[in-house]
Amino acid sequence: MSNKVGFLGPRGTFTEEALLSVMQVELDDLVPFPTERDVIRAVDESKVEKGIVPIENSIEGSVNSTLDTLAFEANSTIEKEVIISTKHNLIGRKGTNIADISTVISHPQATAQCRRYLSKVLPGATIMAANSTAEAVKKVTEGSPDTAAIGTSLAARLYDLEVLESDIEDFKDNKTRFVIVGKEPPPRSGSDKTSLVCFIYEDRPGSLLQILQEFSYRYINLTKIQSRPTKKGLGDYCFWIDMEGHLDDEPIASAIKCLKCKIRDVKVLGSYPRAD
Amino acid sequence: MSNKVGFLGPRGTFTEEALLSVMQVELDDLVPFPTERDVIRAVDESKVEKGIVPIENSIEGSVNSTLDTLAFEANSTIEKEVIISTKHNLIGRKGTNIADISTVISHPQATAQCRRYLSKVLPGATIMAANSTAEAVKKVTEGSPDTAAIGTSLAARLYDLEVLESDIEDFKDNKTRFVIVGKEPPPRSGSDKTSLVCFIYEDRPGSLLQILQEFSYRYINLTKIQSRPTKKGLGDYCFWIDMEGHLDDEPIASAIKCLKCKIRDVKVLGSYPRAD
Repeated sequence: MSNKVGFLGPRGTFTEEALLSVMQVELDDLVPFPTERDVIRAVDESKVEKGIVPIENSIEGSVNSTLDTLAFEANSTIEKEVIISTKHNLIGRKGTNIADISTVISHPQATAQCRRYLSKVLPGATIMAANSTAEAVKKVTEGSPDTAAIGTSLAARLYDLEVLESDIEDFKDNKTRFVIVGKEPPPRSGSDKTSLVCFIYEDRPGSLLQILQEFSYRYINLTKIQSRPTKKGLGDYCFWIDMEGHLDDEPIASAIKCLKCKIRDVKVLGSYPRAD
Repeated sequence: MSNKVGFLGPRGTFTEEALLSVMQVELDDLVPFPTERDVIRAVDESKVEKGIVPIENSIEGSVNSTLDTLAFEANSTIEKEVIISTKHNLIGRKGTNIADISTVISHPQATAQCRRYLSKVLPGATIMAANSTAEAVKKVTEGSPDTAAIGTSLAARLYDLEVLESDIEDFKDNKTRFVIVGKEPPPRSGSDKTSLVCFIYEDRPGSLLQILQEFSYRYINLTKIQSRPTKKGLGDYCFWIDMEGHLDDEPIASAIKCLKCKIRDVKVLGSYPRAD
């Protein structure tokens, strides 16, 4: 069987950093994809054995494309979660003086997370957008020497550049949670989480209350509730719910059975070991 | 008093389109700001009288920076909501042949919303990022003639360019909701909505259930529930809730009073006429 692992690319992203923190993968087996959806679909279509995508950041909230692909399209399930600190770095050519930087490139979300640093240290710099932090770092190798990027230390190493200043994010407790998706549900670990998506009938107010009551009645502790638009219109939502426990635990199995009688559908996204 | 209105700029954004669809504003009174937070803070600091920002898209979900600034920082409140169709256009220099386009520039979110169109019609094109769709359109005037942007028809007019193809978004029922913020709460219209944010004690499971019960008990219909990280850590949330009705309605006033006894805090973000 193939050992290929898909990740949100290009090389040097936070997602690759998260993957390498929990798995040893041969360089040839690392397969970058341009979007979260492409990673998950590659697993579905068995082009790779597993895939890793970001799912939630403590500042930005959920990564919508990951939630939506898993909720609306995927057959693969979540096998593991990985949490890493999201440390942003100002990266430039070796020997660059920060005071000389006139242009800073990054993904708009990374730029937004370092806004206070940039307005304090580089108030006059031009902010340029890139499609990812890794693409931004690559552009530093192509641009003029007064260009810097915001990206990972992994990307700085990949492109032989220098971290001019580390930890430049505005909120220091910035963490990102990733999930590894695949087709081999892991055995119960004893400290598991379960993720599911509840689809409600749109003309029945109070459905979320009913859903929460099923879990509360069975003392199931919810760790995340996220409403997502079903893409049918403003105000039409489904609910992504994470909880403590395993699908094979009687309370969770029974809650899902009761929910399936009450709401339009319940899609189970997997039980997997907790990262924290 | 100043009649200045702040909006998420630069000139030519969807936000400007939404503003001009409901208000006549003199050109000199239109004040663009680079971020949603800057617009709302300008209202808070009385640099502008009102401000308009996007708050929710039917595909992407909530605009986090708007929710967070209103929830965690602002003193101004919501005075009005505006809903417009989010129509993406391929924009180029006049007379450009679509088949000749080699580069497409846009904000990564707009690019993502037109992914199927781009892979069908322009599979080989280089995708370049910009900080906004309006900036992308402006770049077409500076780039080579085989460059196009994804943006608003307003931006195409502003920069004297041509809409080469309209409605290129993958999901046709793509709508965006904007809010106008200010310091003059509007009178009750008879068909109003109220927005508030509920802050819970983090060590008390079941808080969301309690909150929903307060509204359900009083037959208050909720139109949106959105969990948001408080930026203190993964898993620590507050809840943004929209409902039908006005703050001066007895059931809503009484629900808020009861909630304030039970949870850490309730911040009222305003009552305003419904757009739909």
